[in-house]
Amino acid sequence: MSDSDTSIGRLREVVRQFVDERDWRQFHAPKNLSMALAIEAAELMEHFQWITPEASRAIGEDAEKLADVGEELADVLCYVLAIANELDLDLSSTFDDKMAKNRLKYPAEEYRGRYGPEDK
Amino acid sequence: MSDSDTSIGRLREVVRQFVDERDWRQFHAPKNLSMALAIEAAELMEHFQWITPEASRAIGEDAEKLADVGEELADVLCYVLAIANELDLDLSSTFDDKMAKNRLKYPAEEYRGRYGPEDK
Amino acid sequence: MSDSDTSIGRLREVVRQFVDERDWRQFHAPKNLSMALAIEAAELMEHFQWITPEASRAIGEDAEKLADVGEELADVLCYVLAIANELDLDLSSTFDDKMAKNRLKYPAEEYRGRYGPEDK
Amino acid sequence: MSDSDTSIGRLREVVRQFVDERDWRQFHAPKNLSMALAIEAAELMEHFQWITPEASRAIGEDAEKLADVGEELADVLCYVLAIANELDLDLSSTFDDKMAKNRLKYPAEEYRGRYGPEDK
Repeated sequence: MSDSDTSIGRLREVVRQFVDERDWRQFHAPKNLSMALAIEAAELMEHFQWITPEASRAIGEDAEKLADVGEELADVLCYVLAIANELDLDLSSTFDDKMAKNRLKYPAEEYRGRYGPEDK
Repeated sequence: MSDSDTSIGRLREVVRQFVDERDWRQFHAPKNLSMALAIEAAELMEHFQWITPEASRAIGEDAEKLADVGEELADVLCYVLAIANELDLDLSSTFDDKMAKNRLKYPAEEYRGRYGPEDK
Repeated sequence: MSDSDTSIGRLREVVRQFVDERDWRQFHAPKNLSMALAIEAAELMEHFQWITPEASRAIGEDAEKLADVGEELADVLCYVLAIANELDLDLSSTFDDKMAKNRLKYPAEEYRGRYGPEDK
Repeated sequence: MSDSDTSIGRLREVVRQFVDERDWRQFHAPKNLSMALAIEAAELMEHFQWITPEASRAIGEDAEKLADVGEELADVLCYVLAIANELDLDLSSTFDDKMAKNRLKYPAEEYRGRYGPEDK
């Protein structure tokens, strides 16, 4: 299975089953899950904190480091899915709606090559 | 489109196009993206910081708050996808591999109703 | 030495010497230090992610857990001081100025027992 | 008042009084405060996420940006002090103990110019 033929729904189901088998929904208040998500995001950052942005791009060429980074990214994704499960949120339509807002907030003409309002 | 018929690949393509149209790959070093991801995770936490875990579960019943929380979750997902794009990582197989590891690390029998080693 | 007779300046000097002895200023760009600070803050959160707010209050009564939490808090403080050192910021006056702003933003009469605008 | 003649104890007292006047101790469970700390750390990161490490060093020369960054750092410090207040932890001795551990973990000879074990 790869990203081209894997639905968000299937991944959500994997998380749901994992959580149910351990009776962990009792711990999965959105408050707690948001903490877990932020903690995993910090573990991902750990791989990059002391290196330059350029060096961080080169991590894709080091198979071992890439595998480590991939595991942290998977942990982050896992909690995104767990939160969607708890709140019964459809991620795909929520994502599409937010991207539509982003297109209006950051018109391509105005923001080409600029990361934000303060970058001129 | 909903989670059951939306592939990870389609969402990655939406992010890729958004980034390309703005010539933002120059800013998308994994180091920078990991910071952006952690910042969005913190914005999600903001909704829950002062309320109880129980109250955080009830957020699903308040349509306005749920929409706000959904937007933050979409932002987090957006950066997960952007990192996968930059590092050319297949998220689905990375996720499946990590969940297989998690099943070994947290055997269902041993961890049923316990969140971790210190919880007895 | 305790908090009543320890100046911020002395703690800053401890960090400065530690960093200089290792020739680590080359890594201490504020960008990198802000990541390190966020990572330590996440490690502090780890101790609390799955427990209730009430249980987190009780941690002060468990000497071993309190020591662990104290170490994480010290790590956070260390990076606050390192950032002040790099940016040549006087923390005390910066702190006093911000607290003056906070008193205006959150008048005691209006916010007594309420954590924010949405808490009525 | 500046860092050379300001004690940690005085700053803790400022936070304690601010919290008491608003009857906010009810919200100040260490769990909640650790979230607030991580959120403020993320707001500090926001100033640096898209710029290079070198550009982040130059922020000290831009008075307006430095003031903004200083406010975020003050917010982080405020929550460090609030957690110490809630847990009745002496920050100075906790900090000194942790720095002693750090000196053993990172001997100056071995780590001079290297940020960690993987940096050779």
